[in-house]
Amino acid sequence: MKGLFITIEGPDGAGKTSVLSELYPRLDLVAEQTIVKTREPGGIPIAEKIRQIILDPNNDEMDERTEALLYAAARRQHLIEKVLPALESGQIVLCDRFVDSSLAYQGAGRRIGVEAIASINEFAIEGTVPDFTVYLDVDSDTGLRRIQNNRKHQIDRLDSEGLEFHQRVRHEYLKLVEANPERITKIDARMSFEDVVEATFQAIVQRYPEYFRN
Amino acid sequence: MKGLFITIEGPDGAGKTSVLSELYPRLDLVAEQTIVKTREPGGIPIAEKIRQIILDPNNDEMDERTEALLYAAARRQHLIEKVLPALESGQIVLCDRFVDSSLAYQGAGRRIGVEAIASINEFAIEGTVPDFTVYLDVDSDTGLRRIQNNRKHQIDRLDSEGLEFHQRVRHEYLKLVEANPERITKIDARMSFEDVVEATFQAIVQRYPEYFRN
Repeated sequence: MKGLFITIEGPDGAGKTSVLSELYPRLDLVAEQTIVKTREPGGIPIAEKIRQIILDPNNDEMDERTEALLYAAARRQHLIEKVLPALESGQIVLCDRFVDSSLAYQGAGRRIGVEAIASINEFAIEGTVPDFTVYLDVDSDTGLRRIQNNRKHQIDRLDSEGLEFHQRVRHEYLKLVEANPERITKIDARMSFEDVVEATFQAIVQRYPEYFRN
Repeated sequence: MKGLFITIEGPDGAGKTSVLSELYPRLDLVAEQTIVKTREPGGIPIAEKIRQIILDPNNDEMDERTEALLYAAARRQHLIEKVLPALESGQIVLCDRFVDSSLAYQGAGRRIGVEAIASINEFAIEGTVPDFTVYLDVDSDTGLRRIQNNRKHQIDRLDSEGLEFHQRVRHEYLKLVEANPERITKIDARMSFEDVVEATFQAIVQRYPEYFRN
């Protein structure tokens, strides 16, 4: 059986990381194969070092194109060292963010342009596209309010962006959903946490009955 | 008077860095404007942090495309924080390596392809091309022998490549010289160190008499 590459996407405050923590053990219980839970940027030593440079609040001179190239570099290394070997040995990879994040955040959010970001990411991924992507959707007001409530003591360099930035990010995500209806499923992340986890779980297991026992 | 962007290029063992150390004070004595001496990858804190990741001998899992993206990221940040502000204030920038290095090392040396490397670098530099480039040429046998003699106690991750790698690098440099005769001047770096410094000095001051007193 071939591997399965599933990514979770969403704007800040959608609850992505918490949903993944709850989702992973539930999927693991019913999976026919090993599931690897990982995240971008990071997941392996070289990529974690790059992540530290990206997120360090002291690096406030960071240019937005430098940032985009660093994300692409971390993505490449993570793909080569972790994602592709797992897929090649038939495992299920559950990844917190992938290229869609860069298109939304760097392409639209930072206004570098979605085409330019797609191009440097194509250099990094050489054609690897997720089999399935769950997009957790939340409006920017709700998302920002959640960030401000939850992360008071651990604001990083990216959390300090304003409402318009987050609106551009969400708008691009919605365009990606529209352009890739086969690959991306949108879930309303304003529902209760339990409902979002359940909806994400069902979206995955129903789509891949051969990979998950029911 | 507008700024002047001069780069020094060459394969390992050409003596680039030593030549620059000797050249810089000589040019500084006769320059009509401030000269900034800098290097890639590095030159500013964020780029130096990226440089550390690239050169760390422990990062032996580093994929060659990750490396290429990291070079482009460091280049971008160095350009934005150091090179462009200096040029805008009319200074002369003397830079140890720029895009030509990536075309030769990553494009040809590591066989990623010169076109692909040019593309991610164009994302990083957005059209900035040096006014003048001095290429210090040395055959790969001589270059490698010099590296092995000089760097016994400070071998980094990139010095451990073999002869064929260095031959591909030099071959690409020679193609760049041929394709850019107006911009790039080739100097034979097998001459004595003093002669190489003198030839480099003369190439620069004779080309830009309005920037250097004679």
